Amino acid sequence: MAKVLIGIIMGSDSDLPVMKDSAKILEEFGIAHEVKVLSAHRAPELVAEYAKNARDNGLKVIIAAAGGAAHLAGVTAAQTTLPVIGVPINASIDGLDALLATVQMPPGIPVATVAVNGAKNAGLLALEILGVEDNEIAQKLLDYKKLLKTQVEEKNKKLEELGVEKYLAQKK
Amino acid sequence: MAKVLIGIIMGSDSDLPVMKDSAKILEEFGIAHEVKVLSAHRAPELVAEYAKNARDNGLKVIIAAAGGAAHLAGVTAAQTTLPVIGVPINASIDGLDALLATVQMPPGIPVATVAVNGAKNAGLLALEILGVEDNEIAQKLLDYKKLLKTQVEEKNKKLEELGVEKYLAQKK
Amino acid sequence: MAKVLIGIIMGSDSDLPVMKDSAKILEEFGIAHEVKVLSAHRAPELVAEYAKNARDNGLKVIIAAAGGAAHLAGVTAAQTTLPVIGVPINASIDGLDALLATVQMPPGIPVATVAVNGAKNAGLLALEILGVEDNEIAQKLLDYKKLLKTQVEEKNKKLEELGVEKYLAQKK
Amino acid sequence: MAKVLIGIIMGSDSDLPVMKDSAKILEEFGIAHEVKVLSAHRAPELVAEYAKNARDNGLKVIIAAAGGAAHLAGVTAAQTTLPVIGVPINASIDGLDALLATVQMPPGIPVATVAVNGAKNAGLLALEILGVEDNEIAQKLLDYKKLLKTQVEEKNKKLEELGVEKYLAQKK
Amino acid sequence: MAKVLIGIIMGSDSDLPVMKDSAKILEEFGIAHEVKVLSAHRAPELVAEYAKNARDNGLKVIIAAAGGAAHLAGVTAAQTTLPVIGVPINASIDGLDALLATVQMPPGIPVATVAVNGAKNAGLLALEILGVEDNEIAQKLLDYKKLLKTQVEEKNKKLEELGVEKYLAQKK
Amino acid sequence: MAKVLIGIIMGSDSDLPVMKDSAKILEEFGIAHEVKVLSAHRAPELVAEYAKNARDNGLKVIIAAAGGAAHLAGVTAAQTTLPVIGVPINASIDGLDALLATVQMPPGIPVATVAVNGAKNAGLLALEILGVEDNEIAQKLLDYKKLLKTQVEEKNKKLEELGVEKYLAQKK
Amino acid sequence: MAKVLIGIIMGSDSDLPVMKDSAKILEEFGIAHEVKVLSAHRAPELVAEYAKNARDNGLKVIIAAAGGAAHLAGVTAAQTTLPVIGVPINASIDGLDALLATVQMPPGIPVATVAVNGAKNAGLLALEILGVEDNEIAQKLLDYKKLLKTQVEEKNKKLEELGVEKYLAQKK
Amino acid sequence: MAKVLIGIIMGSDSDLPVMKDSAKILEEFGIAHEVKVLSAHRAPELVAEYAKNARDNGLKVIIAAAGGAAHLAGVTAAQTTLPVIGVPINASIDGLDALLATVQMPPGIPVATVAVNGAKNAGLLALEILGVEDNEIAQKLLDYKKLLKTQVEEKNKKLEELGVEKYLAQKK
Repeated sequence: MAKVLIGIIMGSDSDLPVMKDSAKILEEFGIAHEVKVLSAHRAPELVAEYAKNARDNGLKVIIAAAGGAAHLAGVTAAQTTLPVIGVPINASIDGLDALLATVQMPPGIPVATVAVNGAKNAGLLALEILGVEDNEIAQKLLDYKKLLKTQVEEKNKKLEELGVEKYLAQKK
Repeated sequence: MAKVLIGIIMGSDSDLPVMKDSAKILEEFGIAHEVKVLSAHRAPELVAEYAKNARDNGLKVIIAAAGGAAHLAGVTAAQTTLPVIGVPINASIDGLDALLATVQMPPGIPVATVAVNGAKNAGLLALEILGVEDNEIAQKLLDYKKLLKTQVEEKNKKLEELGVEKYLAQKK
Repeated sequence: MAKVLIGIIMGSDSDLPVMKDSAKILEEFGIAHEVKVLSAHRAPELVAEYAKNARDNGLKVIIAAAGGAAHLAGVTAAQTTLPVIGVPINASIDGLDALLATVQMPPGIPVATVAVNGAKNAGLLALEILGVEDNEIAQKLLDYKKLLKTQVEEKNKKLEELGVEKYLAQKK
Repeated sequence: MAKVLIGIIMGSDSDLPVMKDSAKILEEFGIAHEVKVLSAHRAPELVAEYAKNARDNGLKVIIAAAGGAAHLAGVTAAQTTLPVIGVPINASIDGLDALLATVQMPPGIPVATVAVNGAKNAGLLALEILGVEDNEIAQKLLDYKKLLKTQVEEKNKKLEELGVEKYLAQKK
Repeated sequence: MAKVLIGIIMGSDSDLPVMKDSAKILEEFGIAHEVKVLSAHRAPELVAEYAKNARDNGLKVIIAAAGGAAHLAGVTAAQTTLPVIGVPINASIDGLDALLATVQMPPGIPVATVAVNGAKNAGLLALEILGVEDNEIAQKLLDYKKLLKTQVEEKNKKLEELGVEKYLAQKK
Repeated sequence: MAKVLIGIIMGSDSDLPVMKDSAKILEEFGIAHEVKVLSAHRAPELVAEYAKNARDNGLKVIIAAAGGAAHLAGVTAAQTTLPVIGVPINASIDGLDALLATVQMPPGIPVATVAVNGAKNAGLLALEILGVEDNEIAQKLLDYKKLLKTQVEEKNKKLEELGVEKYLAQKK
Repeated sequence: MAKVLIGIIMGSDSDLPVMKDSAKILEEFGIAHEVKVLSAHRAPELVAEYAKNARDNGLKVIIAAAGGAAHLAGVTAAQTTLPVIGVPINASIDGLDALLATVQMPPGIPVATVAVNGAKNAGLLALEILGVEDNEIAQKLLDYKKLLKTQVEEKNKKLEELGVEKYLAQKK
Repeated sequence: MAKVLIGIIMGSDSDLPVMKDSAKILEEFGIAHEVKVLSAHRAPELVAEYAKNARDNGLKVIIAAAGGAAHLAGVTAAQTTLPVIGVPINASIDGLDALLATVQMPPGIPVATVAVNGAKNAGLLALEILGVEDNEIAQKLLDYKKLLKTQVEEKNKKLEELGVEKYLAQKK
């Protein structure tokens, strides 16, 4: 069994329908990961323990998601030297509260914040971080970027062939 | 020496010029308190220790102030059953980031949030909490409310006598 | 019959589906309370009367909820020395109007504001205030905090056993 | 001495440097008015008394200004059937808190809100209300509108003569 | 047939489901009014003509509603000396765009702005303006205020009798 | 004397220090233009006249700037078929009110909105519109783009030579 | 077959249901156009190529739509001297992120921004730009403006005949 | 001379006073880096070239800063598989425009966003990314975290000794 490299933690299991996209992209790249519910407010000691032991447990990146007064990413970042990726969850006020509570960290303790509900990009950012030293992952990321471009080209081809109305009709 | 009843903690000593107003109103009411710099991000263990021992150390209310992705009040509230009063500090974005990061707590862990930079009201709220059971403080709060009303009446009297222009000239 | 200790008031009975969560948590803790519709705009004299007599009537904390230009908590706080907990109700603009109208009180008159629609936390904050002097309530709050932690641990155990997909399928 | 027709009230004498512009425009139109500091939070009974007696005292319109969780206009409107004009004062968050706390009134109790710090327009709106039945005021308002147009024409004439650079130099 | 005293104009007939509440409250008070679709952008000349002739046509107050970059109230106010009440319609961005575009008028041209979608209050404000000189309307407004209070009292009575759960069940 | 092709209008002469940058870039490109103060609120008839006659007067593009409840660009666009460029002026709330009041136009009446205080870009956009058919202007715009790139290259060269500290010292 | 004059590009085919309204109004005016999916993030080289060749390919205006951190319009504008019209798509936060990311361009590179989801107006703005030199299009735009006015007049006639309730009933 | 591992790029040299803090923390950790002005709007080809060659040139992380409609980080991320750290610069609207334009990236292209003006944290995040595989840097980050804690402890000691007033006096 592959060693777990990425920890995906979230403040509540209500975040799971969004955050499963972080796990999914890691799976597609074949990177072992773990998924945990770890509230900074309801279980602060578990978070502290998890963050402090993360590096020794072999983790390389932690993805932390929370909504509202989102503290999980910041609290985790305070207790590890691993990069912590923050995913603001849209639980209220269009996710603006979670975004500000995640990104506006004070000097000394960064959180690498992605878009509101940006679970997929959190996974990709973790892969980019692994890819800094791992050429195989770096190559896969390059292939992924090419795929994105190819998809755009294919959509355009189809759009040109079908025209707007038929294209939209087919999408439904 | 009186027993310390109120702890005033803040994320940075740059919050002190604002937060000294919490201390000042407590002094005016003769309530012993302590003031500490305790960052949830730079010193998470000190915060955890402080919060967990607060009740045993005789504290009755904790006032916690922070700016930006303000986590201090929430992290403290997560580790004590004492009421925690949060003061969002205006360090960026007119303090809206600190306000949302302080007030939008998840079910289970309340923070009693006051206005942006509302240090004086944080002290008064702590006094009201003490005053629930302490009749002497309750009476002083009543006197304080009467004083506020008297000040309004005096200002109106002066305004009536002087008129707007002279009143403004005297204020300078 | 137990003496009513907590008053839960709200600007409109349309707030009741949210605010019943304040009552529910108080019931779980066995604390007698009363629930009233008391608009600062449609019935200002009733609010004034309620606030002024609250302490004499044996109340210890008032929870006041309102949406839009939420004035109820502030108007109540202006006329009592009891702690007033404000619950901004999301009736418009994601509740941002109610949040700002509740929390941005001027020096002299604090409102202990909780999250938008944070009715449960309003109840818990009232319990924490009672728990400052009441050891039994303080102990129950500690048990409640342990329960929150246990629930997190149980969710993690289940998540580990089932994996993300099955966990989500079971939740539906 | 002319009968006072317009009451200008404000939450704090720190609002006076803005609100004197309401008084000034009323003076220019020769309408008697009174200026008072009347906080909804620090002196709620004075506000209630003022609002309830306003019509009997001969007032026709009340202008109420406040910053932050601005309650003064709403609380006044709750206790009179006279039109109440609300002026949100910029005391924090660019005045957005005061704007929302003034304008987002619930059905039943309107406040006629003008711009943030819009003291002059509050005075003009009061004049327009008087002008509904008073032809002399209506005529003066028409003259005022013509004056505004004339000023625009004069500025354009000067701008055409001087060009942009010289025009700006002269303004300094 | 009664003389039309109040004009209710709106930028689009999509505003009508909201704005019919202005008409409804005027009907309840027995005040003749007219309802028109008059876009500042699609029919500027009609708006100009309407505004300029309003006073001569016997109107006493104009209620103007619009969403988005809401210009209708401001453009109308620019061309009449009658009081213009602005209703920001929630067509986008929670109505914040319409609110700011309606309320933030420059010195010289006030718009009496009510809450987002505040059609009923626009009608009531128009009635208050008429009631400045019309004692019959003033008396009806006083009765209306009493009715609001009575409704609050009745709801409380019912809430006391039924308790929260049954009250909510009955409301459905 | 060259025929005036671009009209630059603004709601107030207080906008002139910002808007002179529109004039300046047009001068640099040698395009004749006129600058006028034309308030949609204080001089609506002048605006209507200006907009309606603009095409016949030889204008090709109108640049309209206003702050607050910025109506000038929208009102102008309503009365001409020429492209109207809107410049939101930062007069309050960081210019967000002017931005929304300028850009959120209803279907049928577009305003080409640039950044808050974006006077220079308004001028450049007008030039791009002229450049659609005028090859000389198009060529000058291409040269301008090259110049921007050259300036970036030169700054980098200097930055490489001097290092950060000396570069910053020289800038002062 | 007519020469393509307007390019409509968008960041994702999920923007197509909104953006088809740009195509539709161009069709109504008989102006040849092309529709393409061209992400600034997923296919930056395709965007660069498209933008750089646009003028040589005979395009006169580019309409670029994107949501979230909307870069497409800005990136396109950076690489062409044609006017670029930006359409912020509401994909998150009520479209405020896309609006700011589209409109707040730095000096040197303007984007002509229309309302959030303002696809129809983007088409009309493109037509106005063509109409600067093309009298036939200018005349059609004038007819279109008259049609808008006529529609307003017809709605008013119908509203007058039917009254509010019947008018609303017929609309359903 | 050490191999350059981190590229710090910014949209304008006006961002340099903020961004020098990224360089400073990298210097303190002894990590070679380069600083460049590279506008996505004024020099898009230079940005594309820089991003595409970054990995081959030995870079491991890119820090990209921009204000307003901040496109630099997103455009860079679109053309490299290296992690890109985005720093929103406060150039307008309290930096909210730059924050949203940097963080709200579409699925496929993440940007690791830090706080508004969070240059120091951008440097620290880059170090954390290097520290994933480099134990020496990881150790230094741990020492840095200890230093932050020690500073907090020292400040508290001093605050305890001096009291609030003297502490504040000494800070000046």
